[in-house]
Amino acid sequence: MTSTKLRIVPLGGLGEVGKNMMVIEYGRDALVVDTGLMFPENDMLGIDYIIPDFSYLRERADMIRGIIVTHGHEDHTGAIRHVIDELNAPIYATPLTRGLLEVKLRQAKMLDKVTLNTVNAGDKVTIGPFTVEFYHACHSIPDNVGLGITTPVGLIVHSGDFKIDHTPVDGQLTDFSKLGEFASRGVLALLSDSTNSTKPGWTPSEAVIDGALDEVFRTAPARIIVATFASLISRIQQVANACVRHNRKMTLVGTSMVENVKMALKLGYLEAPEGLILPLDQALAMPNKKLVIMTTGSQGEPSAIVGRLATGRNRSFDLEKGDTVVISAHPIPGNEETVARTINRLFQRGANVIYDPILPVHVSGHASAEEQKLLINLVRPKFFVPIHGELRQLNQHAALAREVGIPAENIAVVENGTVLEFTEDSMNVGERVPGGYVYVDGTGVGDIGPAVLRERENLARDGFVVVNLRLDRRTGKLAEKPGILSKGFVFVRDSEELFAEAAKKAESAVQHANGKGIARSVEDSLSEFFYSEMKRRPMVFALVNEV
Amino acid sequence: MTSTKLRIVPLGGLGEVGKNMMVIEYGRDALVVDTGLMFPENDMLGIDYIIPDFSYLRERADMIRGIIVTHGHEDHTGAIRHVIDELNAPIYATPLTRGLLEVKLRQAKMLDKVTLNTVNAGDKVTIGPFTVEFYHACHSIPDNVGLGITTPVGLIVHSGDFKIDHTPVDGQLTDFSKLGEFASRGVLALLSDSTNSTKPGWTPSEAVIDGALDEVFRTAPARIIVATFASLISRIQQVANACVRHNRKMTLVGTSMVENVKMALKLGYLEAPEGLILPLDQALAMPNKKLVIMTTGSQGEPSAIVGRLATGRNRSFDLEKGDTVVISAHPIPGNEETVARTINRLFQRGANVIYDPILPVHVSGHASAEEQKLLINLVRPKFFVPIHGELRQLNQHAALAREVGIPAENIAVVENGTVLEFTEDSMNVGERVPGGYVYVDGTGVGDIGPAVLRERENLARDGFVVVNLRLDRRTGKLAEKPGILSKGFVFVRDSEELFAEAAKKAESAVQHANGKGIARSVEDSLSEFFYSEMKRRPMVFALVNEV
Repeated sequence: MTSTKLRIVPLGGLGEVGKNMMVIEYGRDALVVDTGLMFPENDMLGIDYIIPDFSYLRERADMIRGIIVTHGHEDHTGAIRHVIDELNAPIYATPLTRGLLEVKLRQAKMLDKVTLNTVNAGDKVTIGPFTVEFYHACHSIPDNVGLGITTPVGLIVHSGDFKIDHTPVDGQLTDFSKLGEFASRGVLALLSDSTNSTKPGWTPSEAVIDGALDEVFRTAPARIIVATFASLISRIQQVANACVRHNRKMTLVGTSMVENVKMALKLGYLEAPEGLILPLDQALAMPNKKLVIMTTGSQGEPSAIVGRLATGRNRSFDLEKGDTVVISAHPIPGNEETVARTINRLFQRGANVIYDPILPVHVSGHASAEEQKLLINLVRPKFFVPIHGELRQLNQHAALAREVGIPAENIAVVENGTVLEFTEDSMNVGERVPGGYVYVDGTGVGDIGPAVLRERENLARDGFVVVNLRLDRRTGKLAEKPGILSKGFVFVRDSEELFAEAAKKAESAVQHANGKGIARSVEDSLSEFFYSEMKRRPMVFALVNEV
Repeated sequence: MTSTKLRIVPLGGLGEVGKNMMVIEYGRDALVVDTGLMFPENDMLGIDYIIPDFSYLRERADMIRGIIVTHGHEDHTGAIRHVIDELNAPIYATPLTRGLLEVKLRQAKMLDKVTLNTVNAGDKVTIGPFTVEFYHACHSIPDNVGLGITTPVGLIVHSGDFKIDHTPVDGQLTDFSKLGEFASRGVLALLSDSTNSTKPGWTPSEAVIDGALDEVFRTAPARIIVATFASLISRIQQVANACVRHNRKMTLVGTSMVENVKMALKLGYLEAPEGLILPLDQALAMPNKKLVIMTTGSQGEPSAIVGRLATGRNRSFDLEKGDTVVISAHPIPGNEETVARTINRLFQRGANVIYDPILPVHVSGHASAEEQKLLINLVRPKFFVPIHGELRQLNQHAALAREVGIPAENIAVVENGTVLEFTEDSMNVGERVPGGYVYVDGTGVGDIGPAVLRERENLARDGFVVVNLRLDRRTGKLAEKPGILSKGFVFVRDSEELFAEAAKKAESAVQHANGKGIARSVEDSLSEFFYSEMKRRPMVFALVNEV
């Protein structure tokens, strides 16, 4: 057995390495850490979300002894139903994370198919050849854990998502003594969250938000609408606390937020005095100065409450002049433009809008450079692997690790799909395994690939034109003028002349069709014509109908 | 005449107010300030760029006595050819701005149609009832001016784009004494740049970039590739200076950058010792440690040099392992994702990439909150109008103005298309004038509107399906199985079953077509079928061909 190596394989595409899913394997036994999804980038047209390609996992389905989910955010939980489609291993999660997974599994009608094990920070669980110690780490959701995984070749510390907050909302500090204990036992490798490696200094504590909320609550002349993520339980707690301090009532809008709050209250992760949280209809009957509406839509999503308020399309209530809207979230990369536009529209409709940096109503849940260096120095690993970041963030995290004394040759910056192999005293970059992203669009998982996306890109840029050619079957000549159908290319009603000219070009192309056939001749002729006239390149298709 | 009011009208759509164009009018005389374009937002599919709607200008073409362009950036110059299409008034610009306008007008074959007047900071020019004093203001391009416009009702100060840099690259400070002189004469209204109003503190001086470049030049093991905007002449100067300090040669790649540098050298806005700048072929023959390549593509544009290097598609030279790429620009809002992806890809290909915040290799050209407050206090206007910003930035700038003592009722936050009316002692928000954005796509100026964009959006999301129905003209029944053409909806090669089923649905819809006709029945039936099968909504069109 001494010749067997420990293998760590982050899975997913070009995005954040190891963020959504990671496989840790030794011999014929393996663990999966996290089961997340990613949101599509702006040029992944029409895609709902992205999940890691499971080919590698599928081949090893019989080896997987357990699935560990480190916390309840979408990018760590959102692909659970797709994972359970592939393999059936017991899931390990802390109570809140388990609760949030249950909501998802129930929606997918899969709850009875899985074994869910509750673990708590401080627990030690043996799964196959691995002994996993769960330790508490601060993040922007309660019940978040990092992992100490004792393997046959040594101790691996996986930071999960983390920050080092000395005054967290739930009072739970990152477990420094456990980290120190790991260090004294000797850590073979630290895998650590790189999200904010390009941010110098120290991420502010969630406590700064209380002060910002106090300022908003003190000065707001009427209703306050707070938008955040549905899973940001600690933010909801902070708003509830501010309501108590400033004598306002609170109501929740948005299915996912209502569901999560119900669950968090039940499990004791959210505390609110009796009568603080009102149903929407009762709340809307309160005086405006007494009301806080807590809702989703902090990313400017047009279909979420804040997006609907910004465009005047919300059903249950409207934005009113004098409302104060607090955007208690940062834009997820790629959403900056949409969020900015939503804020502009809220202003346009008479609201005052508060967002970071106007006031610190949100702070990041991830460690900045100084915290990252602290973790490395607390754990003092032999090898260092930056994870949870794009390549640029991993590289900067690697630079920080070198600064604090990890030798460059003991640091591995790898992409998703690259195997890392460890022995008791070595780390090597191994082979690339097949994989990447899988696009989920509607009910289709993985049916959309680069070819369809390229078509969507072409259609998005210049639309299409379909020419219907009705040919006399005896003479082979056009029986009537070609019909033209076009969308997304020009404004059809103002383009009669253009299309009349195009029809003539098509007629001429039919007459002079050469070896490539009538359809192709017409398509080429019209593509060229439209480009020379409009400098646009619609997709052009000719249908030949003999009549 | 005493009853005549001064009218100030910012033009454009939902974007930055007064940034691209502003009309200042009194009686039957008017000035245009700036003639800029905007880059399309991510959801303006296929649009090349946006210009203000000129309807308002068109109606007043005979009133326009002059066009003032405050500096040479695209968002202030880029629509000049479209403005000149509408009206012919003399243009006033400083030498470098004039040079950059000439490049544009020459490309548009319009140079002989216009009268260009060179002005210099410090000049005073009378245009109709207006006396315009040009004063130097620091920005990220030399020869940038603000305006003091003496009108029949009082003195208006227009900040242009500005920052207050005490150590600018070209040594030219913002003209404090002129601003003080304005204050002592009495300023009716200050219109001031709001871009960075949500940034607290003070924008760093361009001088910090020298230190960052020194660090890069000292440590780079091989070639250095610096990407910035083609019009960022002062940055090109800083890189040239660093080349001299560190004994490297420099070459320029990219037509626009080569053209601008040629012009700036000729006009004396760029200084480089003989032999510093080499042609590309000679430069590529130098030892890697001796070379700096200066180029465009800082926004991750796939067709610019850095974008091509990132994807291995550059013709003249390739990225090499060991290259250091310096991204000396911030992402324009909306480009964050593309820039991040480009940086990741450069890392992936073996380059080291330096960007802010890794090192301060770029600083903003716009004033932050403290500088904005300083300008207000230097000028001490009676009325204050935040301009050059989105609504959220204008509102924050208004808050800063209130902080420094401008009464709330003397501040007007208006959107593009809203008229501001001034008398000697009043400011009023007047009527809204027709206007907005005009989309430029290929050769089409303004032919694309919301309808076509909505089609492109639908096509981008779910593609389209065209069903070709060949009906027997005698029986009215299908003469053969419906033909289906589809793009951007599903991967056609893997969807035989889906389309076979769809063809059956179409046949049945033909048979059971009711009052709405065959085409509509088939379209409705298939839309429903595709949604129930795939949860996607392609655009569906049925063509009926009697044969």
